[in-house]
Amino acid sequence: MKTALRITRAQNFADWYQEVIKEADLAEHSGVRGCMVIKPWGWAIWEHIQARLDAMIKATGHRNCYFPIFIPIELLAKEASHVEGFAKEMAVVTHHRLVQRGGALVPDAPLESPLVVRPTSETIIGEAMARWVRSYRDLPLKLNQWGNVVRWEQRPRLFLRTSEFLWQEGHTAHASEVEAMEETLTMLGVYRRLVEDDMRIPVISGEKTPGERFPGAVATHAIEAMMQDGKALQAGTSHFLGTNFAAAAGIRFQDRDGTEKLAYTTSWGVSTRLVGALIMTHADDDGLRLPPRVAPTHVVIVPILRDEASRHLVLDAADKLSAQLRSGTAGGEALRVELDLRDDAPATKRWGWIKKGVPIVVELGPRDIRDRTIVFTRRDAIAEKRSLPLVDFVANAGREVEAFGETLWHQATEYRAAQTLGGIGDYVALAKHFRPEGAGGFVIGKWSGDPNIDVKLAELGVTVRCLLHEQPKTEGRCLVTGKPATLDAVYAKAY
Amino acid sequence: MKTALRITRAQNFADWYQEVIKEADLAEHSGVRGCMVIKPWGWAIWEHIQARLDAMIKATGHRNCYFPIFIPIELLAKEASHVEGFAKEMAVVTHHRLVQRGGALVPDAPLESPLVVRPTSETIIGEAMARWVRSYRDLPLKLNQWGNVVRWEQRPRLFLRTSEFLWQEGHTAHASEVEAMEETLTMLGVYRRLVEDDMRIPVISGEKTPGERFPGAVATHAIEAMMQDGKALQAGTSHFLGTNFAAAAGIRFQDRDGTEKLAYTTSWGVSTRLVGALIMTHADDDGLRLPPRVAPTHVVIVPILRDEASRHLVLDAADKLSAQLRSGTAGGEALRVELDLRDDAPATKRWGWIKKGVPIVVELGPRDIRDRTIVFTRRDAIAEKRSLPLVDFVANAGREVEAFGETLWHQATEYRAAQTLGGIGDYVALAKHFRPEGAGGFVIGKWSGDPNIDVKLAELGVTVRCLLHEQPKTEGRCLVTGKPATLDAVYAKAY
Repeated sequence: MKTALRITRAQNFADWYQEVIKEADLAEHSGVRGCMVIKPWGWAIWEHIQARLDAMIKATGHRNCYFPIFIPIELLAKEASHVEGFAKEMAVVTHHRLVQRGGALVPDAPLESPLVVRPTSETIIGEAMARWVRSYRDLPLKLNQWGNVVRWEQRPRLFLRTSEFLWQEGHTAHASEVEAMEETLTMLGVYRRLVEDDMRIPVISGEKTPGERFPGAVATHAIEAMMQDGKALQAGTSHFLGTNFAAAAGIRFQDRDGTEKLAYTTSWGVSTRLVGALIMTHADDDGLRLPPRVAPTHVVIVPILRDEASRHLVLDAADKLSAQLRSGTAGGEALRVELDLRDDAPATKRWGWIKKGVPIVVELGPRDIRDRTIVFTRRDAIAEKRSLPLVDFVANAGREVEAFGETLWHQATEYRAAQTLGGIGDYVALAKHFRPEGAGGFVIGKWSGDPNIDVKLAELGVTVRCLLHEQPKTEGRCLVTGKPATLDAVYAKAY
Repeated sequence: MKTALRITRAQNFADWYQEVIKEADLAEHSGVRGCMVIKPWGWAIWEHIQARLDAMIKATGHRNCYFPIFIPIELLAKEASHVEGFAKEMAVVTHHRLVQRGGALVPDAPLESPLVVRPTSETIIGEAMARWVRSYRDLPLKLNQWGNVVRWEQRPRLFLRTSEFLWQEGHTAHASEVEAMEETLTMLGVYRRLVEDDMRIPVISGEKTPGERFPGAVATHAIEAMMQDGKALQAGTSHFLGTNFAAAAGIRFQDRDGTEKLAYTTSWGVSTRLVGALIMTHADDDGLRLPPRVAPTHVVIVPILRDEASRHLVLDAADKLSAQLRSGTAGGEALRVELDLRDDAPATKRWGWIKKGVPIVVELGPRDIRDRTIVFTRRDAIAEKRSLPLVDFVANAGREVEAFGETLWHQATEYRAAQTLGGIGDYVALAKHFRPEGAGGFVIGKWSGDPNIDVKLAELGVTVRCLLHEQPKTEGRCLVTGKPATLDAVYAKAY
């Protein structure tokens, strides 16, 4: 069967991914190594993700604020394992001027001490928290920041791995360990709701193994999604930092009992990477498919303007239909409707919107107006153009959009179920499963915690994605070492 | 009379400004030279400004997108006058790694060619436009970006002049000169509506003189506000770039007539500087006063919890009052209501909210509940605690908030009118007016366009703020040179 994209998932998943992005006009590589340009359609998706998440972050008692993009090296150096983890991939600002010299612009005015462009903001926010927190009355301090960060990438991939990316980073300080641990899991729960309910991407939540922890964290929790090539993608992380960063930055408070204590801190973030996860979960060989809650547009109306005589009639009807649809809802939100008046052939426009992933595309011509009929395509069944009486279409459009969202969810959960293996008993079987090129999926099995596990798994290109939060609490043998083990982990290849 | 702030405007305007920011908890200087931390209350104001402006930018047909924070030096160098204007104050990234050496972290892995942190994005967006624009069908291309930019500042001032600041920058390309000029003025009009209608700051709009143009622009238009020390503050600019940047970047298109032409481009921006303008226009000696449309909170309820017996009663009533108020509106928006449950004395909390600029503060105690009365303070008349029957207060709260906004507008326009002089005839009188330290205000008078005007005005610390868009079209003599002149300009000291 002919597909709208030139490359299918089966042919080459990585090239197909690029093709979806190109044909949906989401983003492109810029002339700056590793940095991307996020184009209007890609950015509009990110804005919807942001709006959803921002409301949840505020509803859980956090306040937005903004900290400097530059971090002094001395600050960064305070938390040893943190700098170890990040120092290798940062943009370093060394000068604050350019001058013309010998016909070229060259750096001038060296800084006394270089600055790095933030790879993450624990250190600079920790410094402020140390100034702001005096007493238990100042706690909890629950902050969030939306912004850009930079981690130098040698092999960039649009949305998945770029030198600059956009994200939110939450940073909180608490008087007790228990409260900080609760916060860590609360925010992972918020991410889970965002990714599952709004983006329709099923995830597994769990704790990272020591080797996969955020540099400087006591515990890192994550949600892991499965892409359509069977690889895992970490969709959000939440870190319990204990008193590590508080000790480095000096976040101390006088407790109710009059003694001075170190605060417990957390941090958590999701990024533009989520757009990559959305693509690799929901797009198909005809292009993107957008979960309704983060779709910039739910219904596009393509008018069929054959001649001047009917032009006015069609545009009038299209305007009226837009207005009627906009007063409808999908998932409690007003339907977002766009009328495509560009100077192009209707079929070209229809295929354009299909590749952009819009849930419903309507084509409206003189005959449809005469018959009081709407001809439309739903993005999960584009082979079939459907037809409904106008009144029924208007009454049902919201439900059609919601049903499309349900389809995305079911297809994603079914795919994941089919690609999740539970019965593998030992390393030989694990290796047999993962060794073939392109072999993927999740293997759920025991993990003994032996530090050599990661090294051995590296031979297969596999990592432990997380230790399940929902543990079956059975006894067995570690899939890698064969040692007795009680904890269950997700083993997978990953982005 | 005692004031809530330790420093008044009359005592020291610059120190008063710092004090307003400190007491309202808006922002502070960070440990990174020239960079500020925008604290939650300051950020919430900026979020409201953003939301208002973003909706207007979208309503005028622009789409948001995102371009890299780094700009290659080669790109920057393409537009000669542009680089001349910006090269002196940029953050330059020269390395992409740090390593431990001799116990210290030092830059490693030098870049082949240094990158600058964007001071503005004409060059990098122009490069993308050159790739995206092929035909007249691709025009107009109307983009906007929200983000951070960096221009190195030796003498930073919170919100007004910081090395990193937040802004939006619009960038558009058009097929015709007329259309691009219209766009330039349309967006200045959008800024005027934002600043006047939403922020209640009166402005004068006009064109900048050649010496004050954006580097590389053909024409720069601006809106100028007057601060309470009589100084001007440029609140927004919109640039008609002609084909200068299009020629540098190669933004060419095939027109309807088949010939290849250069596009005309525009750019326009407003920044977190607007928060500084808001403070210096509306704050008084008791702290901030917030225009309702950008106020994070319209009404704060401070419960008076004297004893355990009445505690439950008061909190119940406060909850109920919050809900009732929230179903009301001010200026078409739902009232934003906050219940202040912090563990502090009611008077301390009330003064805290007064200094933060909230339009209405309610104090609610057992007696008020018994009497079905509301005692409140409106921020433009804090000396007087007012009292209204509960039902009347609930019915009128929205109108009180709106009336407060009107007061801000009237006070600002009256101040500006009182500080605007029209009758000054020559340079001697101009010098006499502006020479005394602290002398300010706007002088409106003729301007001949002589290039020496700026030099002469510099003696007085005065600049030509703009040439009025609304010209009286009379003849007279230039205030500085005495030469015949027809154009009227605003002369003022400025931020």
